[in-house]
Parts: sequence; structure tokens; C-alpha cells
Amino acid sequence: MAITPRNEDYSRWYLDVIRETELAENSPVRGCMVIRPYGYRLWEGVRDGLDSRFKATGHENAYFPLFIPMSFLQKEAEHVEGFAPELAVVTIGGGKELEEPLVVRPTSETIIGHTYSRWIQSYRDLPLLINQWANVVRWEMRTRPFLRTMEFLWQEGHTAHATAEEAVEETLRMLDVYADFAINDAAIPVIKGRKSDNEKFAGAVDSYTIEAMMGNGWALQAGTSHYLGDNFAKAFEITYLDRNNQTQFCHTTSWGVSTRMVGAVIMAHGDDQGLRLPPVMAPVQVIIVPIWRKNKERGPVFEMAERARAALADAGVRVRLDERDDQTPGFKFNDWEMRGVPVRIEIGPRDVAKNAVVLARRDRPGREGKTFGVPIDAVVEHTKALLDEVQAALLAHATEFRESNTRRVDTYDAFKEVLTEAGGFIRVHWAGTSEDEDRIKDETRATVRCYPLDAPEGEGVCFYTGEKTDRVAIFARAY
Amino acid sequence: MAITPRNEDYSRWYLDVIRETELAENSPVRGCMVIRPYGYRLWEGVRDGLDSRFKATGHENAYFPLFIPMSFLQKEAEHVEGFAPELAVVTIGGGKELEEPLVVRPTSETIIGHTYSRWIQSYRDLPLLINQWANVVRWEMRTRPFLRTMEFLWQEGHTAHATAEEAVEETLRMLDVYADFAINDAAIPVIKGRKSDNEKFAGAVDSYTIEAMMGNGWALQAGTSHYLGDNFAKAFEITYLDRNNQTQFCHTTSWGVSTRMVGAVIMAHGDDQGLRLPPVMAPVQVIIVPIWRKNKERGPVFEMAERARAALADAGVRVRLDERDDQTPGFKFNDWEMRGVPVRIEIGPRDVAKNAVVLARRDRPGREGKTFGVPIDAVVEHTKALLDEVQAALLAHATEFRESNTRRVDTYDAFKEVLTEAGGFIRVHWAGTSEDEDRIKDETRATVRCYPLDAPEGEGVCFYTGEKTDRVAIFARAY
Repeated sequence: MAITPRNEDYSRWYLDVIRETELAENSPVRGCMVIRPYGYRLWEGVRDGLDSRFKATGHENAYFPLFIPMSFLQKEAEHVEGFAPELAVVTIGGGKELEEPLVVRPTSETIIGHTYSRWIQSYRDLPLLINQWANVVRWEMRTRPFLRTMEFLWQEGHTAHATAEEAVEETLRMLDVYADFAINDAAIPVIKGRKSDNEKFAGAVDSYTIEAMMGNGWALQAGTSHYLGDNFAKAFEITYLDRNNQTQFCHTTSWGVSTRMVGAVIMAHGDDQGLRLPPVMAPVQVIIVPIWRKNKERGPVFEMAERARAALADAGVRVRLDERDDQTPGFKFNDWEMRGVPVRIEIGPRDVAKNAVVLARRDRPGREGKTFGVPIDAVVEHTKALLDEVQAALLAHATEFRESNTRRVDTYDAFKEVLTEAGGFIRVHWAGTSEDEDRIKDETRATVRCYPLDAPEGEGVCFYTGEKTDRVAIFARAY
Repeated sequence: MAITPRNEDYSRWYLDVIRETELAENSPVRGCMVIRPYGYRLWEGVRDGLDSRFKATGHENAYFPLFIPMSFLQKEAEHVEGFAPELAVVTIGGGKELEEPLVVRPTSETIIGHTYSRWIQSYRDLPLLINQWANVVRWEMRTRPFLRTMEFLWQEGHTAHATAEEAVEETLRMLDVYADFAINDAAIPVIKGRKSDNEKFAGAVDSYTIEAMMGNGWALQAGTSHYLGDNFAKAFEITYLDRNNQTQFCHTTSWGVSTRMVGAVIMAHGDDQGLRLPPVMAPVQVIIVPIWRKNKERGPVFEMAERARAALADAGVRVRLDERDDQTPGFKFNDWEMRGVPVRIEIGPRDVAKNAVVLARRDRPGREGKTFGVPIDAVVEHTKALLDEVQAALLAHATEFRESNTRRVDTYDAFKEVLTEAGGFIRVHWAGTSEDEDRIKDETRATVRCYPLDAPEGEGVCFYTGEKTDRVAIFARAY
């Protein structure tokens, strides 16, 4: 089956790419996907990229139970209101009906809050900086692989601090960590911003987000970081004795990135040929395709191909040699292009004669993206440089795409026209209320994605209410 | 609170060590533990050590749903019989009663079998070599941290092959991988063997195990590898077209190691002071303790301590400098000893004067385990060599302990006497039936741990039935 062109049907394109590149598939359990090995390698890229950053910023991993007593969720009013409709509930264990039903965690603020109340006694125990890698379950009706599934994989950081200032600082620090990963590893130019009240986490004081633009101009919330104030501290009695021996409530944060990020990578970079993977995250960074017709050519071609493979592997490059004898080079080119491998090395008899190889980059199709006559002895150096170039080019391309699909409007009519005609992000001055936001959502399906932290616009006139305001918002349709 | 001596009460010693070294604790959800950061670091050591070995033997990671339709489990008769009493069942999702209850996976043969039946069409799709890192739930009544918990973390490998021979070969290859990890990373001298019919996995043809001896002489099954024959292939129609275009059933395997391995590390090496961690797995391999009394000493001592820390960290050693000013060196020595850190570096004013440090190894208490006057410029070299020595010494010590606590008997009376008087492993010729095994278990609480693969004994007389047999069994009480 082929991949539907993006212009024809972007949703089908997305599903086609996931199927054809074997990233994931639906499972017999409604709303749960099977993450196939190639898709899981992308998730490992997310995990490793984030985990090292978490550890570098002083966080440790731990693990808390999958099951949460229903009563725990009920301790924070907004929280339970937000999550109650989405819960999966275990009512039978070991053949018997349970006295208290257990919720399969939709997120772990409550059980972790309960635990922290025991771990934290004194100001000396603070800050407490912990992350968990886990699966969570939210009973979703409309699912889409990676973007919204009933069960998904994620990390959830949970920290406790002595003061509001420190907790806010942590919230923003982790937002920076997410943005750093998105930009430098996933090559996705995210916008850091604060969520509107309508869109914030159930139980948070403030939610921050990194918002990315997908290939159809829609927004994707790729990670969130929440300042929870003392809401959960009060619900779970997370208190400490300060230096003056006074009992104080902690201020807590939580922050998460999920398998959604894999969906972001697919949609931020993919083209009609399939995936385009940023080299930092690509499971296979370099594919070597040997080209030969006559049997006597095969030996020398494979010998040089293997030499290139070994040299690159020794240099730490994730490289594969496509040894399939039952497929043509043309088939292999298309196959690995579809799978988004950033760099291809072609080696044929004429290359062997010249003791050189051809490098081809995924992000520039055809002859234009090829470098001919790369000496075999310099293949590592050239390939590494090219991987860096491709990484930078994907980021530059996505940034350019976002900029050219971000528009400013002064009136609600213009706003609606942009959404209908062009889509993308709309950057506006915004003084509306939550009800205004609901109304706009009903009428246009666009929501406030965030109030960008970097907003040099200064004061202006709200496109909707006509009021003067210095608040800037980005509206878009979103996944 | 102090740690109970092992001789006084081994079970309490185990729980004391886990509490005092902050590895884990009970959660408010019965039978589920919270894995604390230090305990999770040990699990990360297991995970990383195994994951790299899986990948080196051609396996890829994937992820399958947490929930399994109840009907799937019922497709393999022995399997459902084995697991039915231990299931946690989700009956409510999104506020509604489910039409078909969903089981929280106790293991994933069924859902993976279902998936493989779709992935595998031809002999070209074989072998299929996949591993999953996941949490599983088994409704256990008597739980003990790491050893037996309702929810636990593990990896489960699931492979499909064209022939029985290849599947058996894989089963044994993964047993070797487990043994290699246990011996070389965890310093636990495991015995590879086959399980008796009474002890094998529900649905397997043959189960293989690595059995370890704990500090009280009990056995712990630290990993298992199962040859499933075509049992699951028949239940889930995992078939392929062979080279002659004939439909054949696959032969499958599964193999798993869990957070139990952390319990094995605690109990194989721990002593009355607490943990003794093998350097390969230790979260902190080297702790540097600065020693000073007068304020003017602090600067130079810390300067050299920091120099040693930086040099070791640069060399890839997991090193920490204990900078706490409110604790004495003596307290710190005990604290890090309890936490099992393999090597301690002491630096005091006299060491600074000599431009040297003192190395102390965890596995040899007191002066005997110290090396004085190690030149600061040679600290990396000496420390690395010492870490290797400690690693080897822990393995040697555990091996010696196991050998001196393994006994041979010729009669059931002697068998019972050994169990009462000494415990440990009993290595015997064994021609009994499953019923005999049950009877022995009832009478002595000892079970067949395995038929060791390495059994040079040749023919002999069964201690229980008096029959001649060449089958050798290891009996022990077990966790």
C-alpha cells in the first residue's frame, strides 16, 4: 500500500506512515496500540534524551504503584473532576470483589503526594526531585496512535519545594529541559508558553507547555510542566518544618512528556515519501546500499560497504548495511527513505574503482542532495558532518514552516478567514474570558495553545474584545 | 533503627536493610511497593546490563498493551489455569461497565501470541526476536519487597521460530545471557538448570532457570527461560508458510527477569552492616569522605577530595563526594558501608601532606581492607583495579558460600536432617514423581529448584525412591 499524499488527506497520511514504516499498530484492546520495534526505538530516543537531562538537573528516578485507591483521587477536588470520566477501574483482584476499587493511574500526583507527605519532614528534605517512567491509562473515546491512546508511556516528574518561588523556578526549568530536547534532539522548534485556564492541568495553579506545529499547521502540545502551588500539598498534607520550626506546606510541581512526542516527530518532519528523522533520534542514522549487477561485482562492492559500515560503527554512528540480495537498489532507496533514515551511502562498482562512495541526504531529494566521490578513508568525517547538517536543516525547515504559517490578525473575521483559508498558528493580542475562549472553540475549533513566554509585542488591541491588553496568545487547531 | 543481625532473624534483616538503605517501602496499595531512588538505580543496573545483552543477541524492544481481553487468556488451557487465581480485572472504563472484562497483564504470552499470528506469514519472517520492558500484576497474598509483589517490573522476551530445535536453542541462549549477567554484573554464581514439571511455567513444555543461593541458604529463582513448544502457536494460530509452501506452526519461547533480581543482589551479598553491592551494578561505586577537625584543614582536604572526585568521574567511575558538614567521618563510614558502596576513599590532613589517599574496600572490614598512601596522581588506576578486585571477590565469596552450603545425601532421613540442621542446597540423584515432590514439599518445605544442566555425577541411586537414575536434582527451600 502507498502513502496518501499529505495534501490529499493529512490524517490518512499519518496513519499510512505509521503502518508502512512499522512504527505501531492497533491492538485488539480498543484504544491501545502495539508499539513496534522501530517505533519503540524512537521512544527510546525520547527516553534517553530526556533521562540524561533529568539526571543532569539533579533528578532521580523512582517507581510508584500502578494502582491508586479511588479515595486518593477524591482528595483534590479539581483533580478528580478532571480525571473521573477517564478512569479504568479494577474491581476484582485474586477472584474477589475489592472493598475499595483501584484506579489504574491516569497520572500519579495523588499517590506520590501521599508518599511525599511521609518522606518530607524538614526543610532539609527539600527540594525533593523525582521522576518516574511509567505507563498510564486514560479512557479515551477517540484515539490516534501516539497522539492519544488509552494507555500510553510517559515520564512524570514530581517535585516538592519549600517556597512558591522555588517551585515556579523548577516548573520553568523543566519546561526549558523539554524545549532543549525538542529543539536539539527532535529538531522541533517548540514555543514555550503558559496555558490558558481552560487548558490547564486539573489541579494546577499554572500549566506551561511546549507547543509544536505539525505539517498541516495544527498545534501539538508536546510536553507540559505544572506549578501545582500548595493544592496537592494541602490535599495530602505534604508539610515540612522550616528553620524556625514552623510547619509549612510544600509547593509542588509535575511535568510530563509522553509517546506523543513520537507523533510530533512524525508530523513535524514527515513528507509525502514518509518519515524524515532527525539524526540525533534516528534508530538508523546511516543506511549503506550496495549496488551491483554482475556476480563478480558483488564481492568488491560488499567488501567496501562492510569497510564503511565498520568504520562508522566504530565511530559510534548507528549504521546498517542493507544486505538483502532479493531487492533492487531502487527498492532499498525508497524503503529507507520512507523510514526516514537521514543519510544513505551508495556504493557501486564505479565507486569501488575510485575508492570512494556517494552520500545522499534524506531531506534533499534527488541529485541535489548527493555528494559524489567521498573518499572511503574520509567517510566517517564526511558522514558525521552531513548528519549534523541534516539535523540543523530539519530544524531550520520546521522553523521556517512555522514562521510562514504563523499569522497575525486584528479582527475575529480575519481570524476565521485565516483558519478557513490557511490554518496554522494565529498570534494575537487577547483579552477574552474563558467563556470567550469556549465560544471561539465552538465556532472555529481553534483554542488558545499558549501565552508565549517570549512575547515582545507589547500592548495592543484584543482581536476579539477590542480591549487594550499586553497579553499575547497563540490560537490554533490542535491535536 | 538498626539492622537486625542475619543470624537472629534473616527476614527481618532483609526488611531492615531495605528500609535503612532506602531501597523501597510498602505503599498504601496492599502488596505494591514504592521503589525509592536508590533501589531504582539498582533496577536500572539490571535493565541496562540485560538490555545491551538482548540487543547484542539480535533482539529488539517493543511494547504491547497492559490490558488483555479475558478471552485471550482462556485460549491456552494450562496458562489460564495457572494465572486465573492471580488476576486483577478492570470491569469499569470511562464510567461504564465493560462488555468484556480486561485483565491487567500477569505476563504477555497471549496478547503477543495474538499479535505474532498477524506479523508472521512466511519463514522469511522468522525468527522473530522481541523483548518488552513492562510492569505486570499478579494478585499475591503474601508479598515481600522485590521478591514477590503484586505489581512488579520486568522484561519479558517473546520469540517465534520455525523449528523446535531453533526455539530450544533460543531458550538456552537466553538462559546463558541471564547467567552471564548474574555472574559478571551481579556477582551471583547462579546454577543453570531445568525446572521440574511441578515448578514449570503454566503453558511451557520446558522451563529453565537460574537459581541463586541467598545468605540464609535458601534458593531464589532469579530468572527463567521457557520453551513453549507449539502450545501458544496452536492456541493463537501462529503459523508460517515454509519453503515448500506448507503451513507450519511456529515454536515459541518466553523469558523473564524482574525486580526480584534486586532482591537477589541484596540477599546474595549483604552482611550485618547492610548492603554489599557489586561494583558493576553499584549506583555509587566510590564514596569520598573528607576528614578534618580544624577549620584551616577543611580547605586543603576538600580541594584534594574534589580533585580525586573529578579525576574519577572523568574516568567514568560513579563517584560521590560526601560534603555534609553536619556529620562525622565515622557516621559517614557507617552510612556508606550500610549502603554497600564498594570502595571508600578517605582523605585527611595527613594524606594531603603526603599527597596521597586511603582506599578502603567494603567487602573487607577494618584495617585489613585498607590501602594506605595511594598517590593522588594514581588514584584512578588504583581505584579501578580495586573495583575489579571487589567485583571478583564478591563473586568468589558467594561461590564459596554456595559450595560450602551444598550437601549431598543418600537417604531421605539424611535429607531431612540437613534441612533442619544446616539448610542450603541439597544435591541428589532423583527419580521421584511429581507426587513424591509434593510430598517432600509438604513434609520439609523443600522443592526441586532445578535439574542442573551441568551434572557430571553420572548414574546413581535416588535418595528417596532408591531407584537407579542419572537425573540429578537440587533441592532447597526457596523464596
